[in-house]
Amino acid sequence: MSGNKATPMSDSNLAQFDDLLRRQVASDLTEFLANLPPGEAKRLATRLEANAQGQLFTLLPLGDAAQLLHEMAIVQAAEVLLHLQVERAAELLGTFPSNEQADLIAELKSAAAPILAALPRDVAQSVLKLSQYHADTAGGLMIAEFLAFAESTLVEDVIEDLRLNAVMYSRFHAQYTYVVDAEQRLTGVLRLRDLLLVERTIPLREIMTRSPLRVPADMPLDDLLRLFDRHPYFGLPVVDSVDRLLGVVLATDVEEALSESLDRRMLLASGVWSGEEYRSMNWTNRVMRRFPWLAVSLLLSLVAASVIGWYEETLTAAIALAVFLPVISGMGGNSGNQALAVSIRELSLGLVQPREFLWVVRKEAIVGIVNGVILGIAIASVCLIWQRNLLLSVVVGVAIIVNTLVAACLGGILPLALKRWKLDPALASGPILAAITDLCGFLVALLLADNLLPRGGQ
Amino acid sequence: MSGNKATPMSDSNLAQFDDLLRRQVASDLTEFLANLPPGEAKRLATRLEANAQGQLFTLLPLGDAAQLLHEMAIVQAAEVLLHLQVERAAELLGTFPSNEQADLIAELKSAAAPILAALPRDVAQSVLKLSQYHADTAGGLMIAEFLAFAESTLVEDVIEDLRLNAVMYSRFHAQYTYVVDAEQRLTGVLRLRDLLLVERTIPLREIMTRSPLRVPADMPLDDLLRLFDRHPYFGLPVVDSVDRLLGVVLATDVEEALSESLDRRMLLASGVWSGEEYRSMNWTNRVMRRFPWLAVSLLLSLVAASVIGWYEETLTAAIALAVFLPVISGMGGNSGNQALAVSIRELSLGLVQPREFLWVVRKEAIVGIVNGVILGIAIASVCLIWQRNLLLSVVVGVAIIVNTLVAACLGGILPLALKRWKLDPALASGPILAAITDLCGFLVALLLADNLLPRGGQ
Repeated sequence: MSGNKATPMSDSNLAQFDDLLRRQVASDLTEFLANLPPGEAKRLATRLEANAQGQLFTLLPLGDAAQLLHEMAIVQAAEVLLHLQVERAAELLGTFPSNEQADLIAELKSAAAPILAALPRDVAQSVLKLSQYHADTAGGLMIAEFLAFAESTLVEDVIEDLRLNAVMYSRFHAQYTYVVDAEQRLTGVLRLRDLLLVERTIPLREIMTRSPLRVPADMPLDDLLRLFDRHPYFGLPVVDSVDRLLGVVLATDVEEALSESLDRRMLLASGVWSGEEYRSMNWTNRVMRRFPWLAVSLLLSLVAASVIGWYEETLTAAIALAVFLPVISGMGGNSGNQALAVSIRELSLGLVQPREFLWVVRKEAIVGIVNGVILGIAIASVCLIWQRNLLLSVVVGVAIIVNTLVAACLGGILPLALKRWKLDPALASGPILAAITDLCGFLVALLLADNLLPRGGQ
Repeated sequence: MSGNKATPMSDSNLAQFDDLLRRQVASDLTEFLANLPPGEAKRLATRLEANAQGQLFTLLPLGDAAQLLHEMAIVQAAEVLLHLQVERAAELLGTFPSNEQADLIAELKSAAAPILAALPRDVAQSVLKLSQYHADTAGGLMIAEFLAFAESTLVEDVIEDLRLNAVMYSRFHAQYTYVVDAEQRLTGVLRLRDLLLVERTIPLREIMTRSPLRVPADMPLDDLLRLFDRHPYFGLPVVDSVDRLLGVVLATDVEEALSESLDRRMLLASGVWSGEEYRSMNWTNRVMRRFPWLAVSLLLSLVAASVIGWYEETLTAAIALAVFLPVISGMGGNSGNQALAVSIRELSLGLVQPREFLWVVRKEAIVGIVNGVILGIAIASVCLIWQRNLLLSVVVGVAIIVNTLVAACLGGILPLALKRWKLDPALASGPILAAITDLCGFLVALLLADNLLPRGGQ
């Protein structure tokens, strides 16, 4: 294995791709990519080095390049744009819907300036404006491509407008026509297909649905999800504080944002902090995403384990207990993690409120005690058979029961507490829980041992 | 706290809800629910006991009951239907789109029979047919509500049909009109709004887009996601093996299925097996979801910890090492979990293929070694200052480095291996990884100690 090359010998697709890129024949590249199974072009593109990526997205016809770029994650697509000539980058950026353009600009940070400068002035301004909204709000998710007409517009004028702008509108996700007053305030909505069923000479005012459901630009993702759960709409109009129409938030974009937030949560909960990690990123970047959690949990686990230090004598006298300590703390960690996952999920589904500590404890206690007793008895029996020491097996069994119970209750309420303190439950629950359940497990086991077991050597 | 009641004293909304239910005045209930913040009605409804739930969904007007039921998860909604009179259950079931009807029927299993019997015969048959498809495939996700016309249909006839069936179609997510031949095979597609722009007297054959993109009923979720990533369509037609139109799979439903699968994955990875857990379920159900993983991991952790048993003498002689053993195994677990999460995510995004072991190991090794060395030196320094024992701190530091490195590499490739063996990476990776990293950590530390440290007592 050569250390630097991105091509393991086994990856024949990647080798062929590299080769085609070096030969720079656009049509060969297009054909090669078109014949790959779904998703494979994206995988290969992310494996290329920055230079090769730049070449690829410059050589390909705009449509093909855009399609491939749309498949990639925002972080990765931004990386590609960064290494292209600004004109090409601006051209490609223009193929994205406005909300994704804004995401890309936000991701590029200061590097976005030259690309924005290469865009038509009005487009650049509208993208910049969109990128000001917080990502997981109606404003951050909305698209600026929508149809809006004055109340007095006749149906036939709408149809004429659709005909004249058919090419432009074909990129719109337009299922609705919005109706606004002279101050651009939202007053009504129509489904486009309703226009098929009415006389062409009447104004929209007479056929529109009045006072349609609308959302403020700062409505958070969770509330949007609940709205779309209740109402099977394709999209909802987004308005500012004085009810002016700003954009449309689509149900698909809201669902997609949910998936992305669940994906981030999974990474966070597994200890990958400060943003998404892709293995195609450089290693310093990746180390920095993983180091903080490792450092924090190392420190906390050291604190928890120092309990063992207080009881060195006890442990020396009953060294067989050393085998069971990690088993006891592990049971606590596992039982706590289960409760943690259920709480984080119920919080995000709105099935539990952050103040409902008692309800959660009651629900967790029963599961914790049942599982704890069954497995505590099991492990105590193993201990008894193996070590032939009744007192030791009582210590181990009781420690398992207590630690499983405590961990389940704690794991259940920790996310609620963090949510009340405005912290991200997925981020902070893991390390805190692990430290507490370790500490609790060691403490219970060693305390019991200290009191129940005879001091062998003294 | 009374053990049986679902109402903690603090939950005034729930108490009021309970009270209103007892008084059985439908209009009061409707008003109460309408004034709750978004999501709160759902939370309260899930907290009711089965009887009270039955009363609620019987008393409420059909529209309100349906809206509330639509907000709930499929598992919970199925539970509600189970406790209603069959006529009411059938009525409520009828308000769901066909794909969710099928999900509910699948969830209800044999209990679905009486409800199906209360539905109109053709509806029951079509739902039953839909429920045969695997949930996360095009067939399982598609809706049966779509518009299809023969090629020879005139535009004006389509419009007349839309007018006649406006009420029924208003429930349809119809953005497209499909065109089929005499054998119901898909031959074309039209956007409904395109009908606005054409002469009303020409047949669909002349204006339709021919050979539209279509998907087979057994196309899995991952492939659907990639298709919708590439093409910004609202929906795609689903066909059987001879190209007959079966239904339409909507982009929103595909995105929603992704969120649900990520949600299940988070639970699976946290050790909640055999289905979703809600705390509103009864405790035996919940114990059964958590017990298997606790039992498996207990067994595996016992095997790993038994390594400590082999080295009891070594540990007795260097009892200070006992403090560091859980720290070392914990570092391995954490480092491995990070790599695990990244692999599971990259696999599902299609950024890594199950055969790319070498690539993953190379990418993980560098991150593992950097983090391991930094934290290994840190912990060795702590050990040196605390215990004033150079050899012990070398043992601890080296063990941390080795275990962090091994765990990162293993965590990275385990999901790939499981995927190759057709197992669910999220399900199996956790327990296997924890056992191996524990074992590896203990073994390295105790082996080093055995060779480097002087035997105190002998």
